[in-house]
Amino acid sequence: MDFKSKLDEAVEKNSSLVCVGLDPDPDKLPEEFKAAEKPLFEFNKSIIDATHDSVCAYKPNSAFYEALGVDGIEQLKATCDYIRENYPDIPIILDYKRGDIGNTNAKYAQFAFEYLGADAVTLQPYQGGEALQPFLEYKDKGIIILAKTSNDGSAEFQNLQTEGKPLYEHVAEKAVKEWNMNGNIGLVAGATYPEELKRIREIAGEDTIILVPGIGAQGGDLEVMLKAGLNGSHKGLIINSSRGIIYSDNPAQTAAELKTQVGQLR
Amino acid sequence: MDFKSKLDEAVEKNSSLVCVGLDPDPDKLPEEFKAAEKPLFEFNKSIIDATHDSVCAYKPNSAFYEALGVDGIEQLKATCDYIRENYPDIPIILDYKRGDIGNTNAKYAQFAFEYLGADAVTLQPYQGGEALQPFLEYKDKGIIILAKTSNDGSAEFQNLQTEGKPLYEHVAEKAVKEWNMNGNIGLVAGATYPEELKRIREIAGEDTIILVPGIGAQGGDLEVMLKAGLNGSHKGLIINSSRGIIYSDNPAQTAAELKTQVGQLR
Repeated sequence: MDFKSKLDEAVEKNSSLVCVGLDPDPDKLPEEFKAAEKPLFEFNKSIIDATHDSVCAYKPNSAFYEALGVDGIEQLKATCDYIRENYPDIPIILDYKRGDIGNTNAKYAQFAFEYLGADAVTLQPYQGGEALQPFLEYKDKGIIILAKTSNDGSAEFQNLQTEGKPLYEHVAEKAVKEWNMNGNIGLVAGATYPEELKRIREIAGEDTIILVPGIGAQGGDLEVMLKAGLNGSHKGLIINSSRGIIYSDNPAQTAAELKTQVGQLR
Repeated sequence: MDFKSKLDEAVEKNSSLVCVGLDPDPDKLPEEFKAAEKPLFEFNKSIIDATHDSVCAYKPNSAFYEALGVDGIEQLKATCDYIRENYPDIPIILDYKRGDIGNTNAKYAQFAFEYLGADAVTLQPYQGGEALQPFLEYKDKGIIILAKTSNDGSAEFQNLQTEGKPLYEHVAEKAVKEWNMNGNIGLVAGATYPEELKRIREIAGEDTIILVPGIGAQGGDLEVMLKAGLNGSHKGLIINSSRGIIYSDNPAQTAAELKTQVGQLR
């Protein structure tokens, strides 16, 4: 099943727009996992088992696994396998923000889609749509392009005025209107910048998924963000929380509460 | 030793500005390596042994290893270890074009510098200098930022006029003038765009290293590129060739010839 349909079904089934970011940091794991042979994987398993009926997607952040080299990649693979085997209805978004020339992007796509079996990926726009072609050809996969990122310094280039509009608007327009022949493009817009998110929703139209990081640890306001980003059907957003859920005292409860809160505000 | 000094010494010792890109593709390897247990590593070893006195750096492209998952990362690590143990004077540039928010970039830096022991990395500028801080703090490492990339479609955003100049110039200026407190920033400029390379050299000044992909398979002209990119001391460039050398019939000879050709043109 293609990413968009899989996501739609997970949103319906769990009545949730919440995505849990799987960013396990060895230093921050609860004590009980630190001694495990595969601590990141065991920790993820506990998070996944606790939250699987509150989420519409999981988003492992590749960096947290790569940092440990072979051992980390093994645990990333085990995490993706675990989700697919136990909760096959929940899509996996590999957050790895890759971008290179075409023949290299083909290899990055192989890692995400063939090796890990991810349903969607996040990508850098700087090298343009031509370079992203090998990703775009996976028409059943979600191809989620950075438009406006959640970090403090994201305005440095993203908000530069470029031929009449800020760069992030150019990126959103090109991605949605020119690169989107398979209708599988999504965009990233940080919750920390609701005005830009609103503008990105206007550009993206009703059918484009927007992945929104930046609530919780990064401080984005949920209500303001939803007002800015939801489409006409009160959907179209994937609201990610990583640290706010996975390191809370009770991840099951925190995820369920966020789901309920989003549900009420929708 | 810091990256710049190590690179300078390798340039002097081997009288070379040539960097060999280690992008081993399982389908393109010579038959003799295909049956090996670690084909990418064995192939790399043969390339490294054959070219080590013709190069100023090696540049493994992470995507080609990631594509194979755990097995690929193992061979990337083995390749970096092999270079460090056998040719400790030759710097390793990990070409992985990462970029994310700060806490994630800290993990990507851990992969490159702590796990693999790379001397330098290539990075995406889109999220701005604030996000790159965890990289910039490794003051002995080379931090090489994409300015103008070699691919056909790189103009889509990189050449947009932004407040009076093309985006790639903004990126080069910010990187060299504002983010460069440790003097360890370099830039990427494709050989396929000599005018932009020339402009980037003007912005970068004498002391900034420019990594130049795009000769060989991608079609950049060597003489035009050198004229545009060399600094006043006829140095300051790292001229990368990947496919053009590693898949040639005689990599030792091809690398030596490129070194000689560059030497004469310098």
